[in-house]
Amino acid sequence: MWQATENELESIAIGAGILGTGGGGNPYIGQLRARQAIRQWGSVDVLAPDELPEDARVVCVGGIGAPTVGIEKVRDLQSYHALRAIEDYTGENATALISNEIGGSNSVEPLIAAAMAGLPVVDADGMGRAFPEFQMKTFFVYGVPCCPMAVSDEKGNSVVIRETIDPRWAERLARSVTIQMGCVACYAVAPMSTEQVRRTAVPLTLSLARDLGDAVKTARHHGDDPLEAILSICPGKVLFSGKVVDLERRTTAGFARGSLTIDGLDAYAGERMVIEFQNENLVARRDGVVVCVVPDLICAVATDLGEPVTTELMRYGLRVTILGFPAPALWTSAQGLAVAGPQAFGYDVDYVTLAV
Amino acid sequence: MWQATENELESIAIGAGILGTGGGGNPYIGQLRARQAIRQWGSVDVLAPDELPEDARVVCVGGIGAPTVGIEKVRDLQSYHALRAIEDYTGENATALISNEIGGSNSVEPLIAAAMAGLPVVDADGMGRAFPEFQMKTFFVYGVPCCPMAVSDEKGNSVVIRETIDPRWAERLARSVTIQMGCVACYAVAPMSTEQVRRTAVPLTLSLARDLGDAVKTARHHGDDPLEAILSICPGKVLFSGKVVDLERRTTAGFARGSLTIDGLDAYAGERMVIEFQNENLVARRDGVVVCVVPDLICAVATDLGEPVTTELMRYGLRVTILGFPAPALWTSAQGLAVAGPQAFGYDVDYVTLAV
Repeated sequence: MWQATENELESIAIGAGILGTGGGGNPYIGQLRARQAIRQWGSVDVLAPDELPEDARVVCVGGIGAPTVGIEKVRDLQSYHALRAIEDYTGENATALISNEIGGSNSVEPLIAAAMAGLPVVDADGMGRAFPEFQMKTFFVYGVPCCPMAVSDEKGNSVVIRETIDPRWAERLARSVTIQMGCVACYAVAPMSTEQVRRTAVPLTLSLARDLGDAVKTARHHGDDPLEAILSICPGKVLFSGKVVDLERRTTAGFARGSLTIDGLDAYAGERMVIEFQNENLVARRDGVVVCVVPDLICAVATDLGEPVTTELMRYGLRVTILGFPAPALWTSAQGLAVAGPQAFGYDVDYVTLAV
Repeated sequence: MWQATENELESIAIGAGILGTGGGGNPYIGQLRARQAIRQWGSVDVLAPDELPEDARVVCVGGIGAPTVGIEKVRDLQSYHALRAIEDYTGENATALISNEIGGSNSVEPLIAAAMAGLPVVDADGMGRAFPEFQMKTFFVYGVPCCPMAVSDEKGNSVVIRETIDPRWAERLARSVTIQMGCVACYAVAPMSTEQVRRTAVPLTLSLARDLGDAVKTARHHGDDPLEAILSICPGKVLFSGKVVDLERRTTAGFARGSLTIDGLDAYAGERMVIEFQNENLVARRDGVVVCVVPDLICAVATDLGEPVTTELMRYGLRVTILGFPAPALWTSAQGLAVAGPQAFGYDVDYVTLAV
């Protein structure tokens, strides 16, 4: 067990910004919101899955919407409202919270609700990265029901998706409700058991995010290369480095979708990388050849300081380095790829694990 | 108390088609569905509000969506599923059902769920006509909460709108869910008390629909004028008569919206009526002058047989007579007009009660 205090938040924001592969909501805004919550209600205990009591009831909370909207319409306490809504609906009280994805602001969303509710959070999440759609969680891939789940906004509206014929319908209905709520909302899923968390969650990802951020900060402090520091914590490789020369980004159907073009610099001069994204980076092509594809992680960081650059902040002229990391093993099974492999996103590309 | 058997359904369909002012869903398809339900599960007791037990728990059920879609994608047993969903959510069992609107297929939607559940229905509804939006019910105008309410589709998806900041938000969220469900769904609202039904419902409208239909059928049988028969049962007047020469109708945002142009025949030759509709007919202008406006009823019937012509069946060349009826008094109060007067629909027209 460790404690998430104000001190850890900056590191978590950096690490979750990297692991978020462009999505998960703006990590800086998430950090500020979590800082305010912890200052007001106190720090939060973080339990490894092994440290959970056997009879824990673990509620997954998260934000839903388009990150491009999330930086203009900042979330308030919706995740707490969604937590109370699902507790009220199920008649069960949560004894711990868990992150839906260890990306961007979603990595700290449970800390906010947990600080307010006086609950611990689990050092784990449902993706080990970020994904754009609700059903894309290891929990649901491995048999945890995705319903009932509650969606709440900042105004006082709340909806329970009670029953759906499959997890994609939960996404579809929750997304349409989120769009009405202003394209930014929070959700909470009916409680999971300890056994379900241990079997289906990607473990120890909140501490991984914290360690990644710590390494980046230490490297900056000592004048070392922050990219090397990242790769020393999380095995992966540099895919490309250059300057953003084009960005096509639109907020549509509740998502931020588009593509990013980078012209190579230094060792990559004369080459070009194009990355397609839907909130998150999904396919990276180097001179037309796929070099990394979802569910593997495609992460953009500022070349100088290793600061993650999320989808909503990407812009023309930025010097970025693209890092690739192999996906957690829970995603590279046949069941995992069926939910979040390249074909699930409509790409006619076969998944090949990134060699590192 | 009376019994709704297969024999009453044709008359109810005619009467509710008239009172539905164009909307409420296709009355013929509603009639066929109700016939099948009553044949399978038995006839349904119809209780006047005065005959309800003092401790009744009355659930309002209805269809939501665009009538243009409802004739292609016929509803199944969604209203029963929505009933069970709201019972499950509230932990209360319904002891009677009530219609949300006495228009089109929605007039018989509770009969279908009631036959299946073995419950009576109340001889009353929440509009005394039909209206396009969920919040436009006398129940909610006079203080009955509109939430929680359940929305269910034919596939097995169900959503509970748990809490909203006002009834318009319930409409907004339910409509967006309905669109995802294929533009046709059913809903059920948390139970009302007997006192609430007696105070806020428009009473005796199911028997009014039946009596209207009986009068039309009798007139046809005897070769009498069915329009006179209608006006003998329900005080109102002929607003116009002619031939449909233009129809602009689009299915958008979950509604069937547009306008209808009728060139006068006989006593109305040389004149023109234009009617604007949103599922229901809302404003009727004769040579540019408003002659009847919502919440008063603007009803199109075939000139020869008095058969109601609903929005989704309206077409070029039909000979129609437009009838006008004053709205129930629950709608012409300041509170009623605020929810369903001309301004609530965006028309810069003052409401003036139709003189009959």
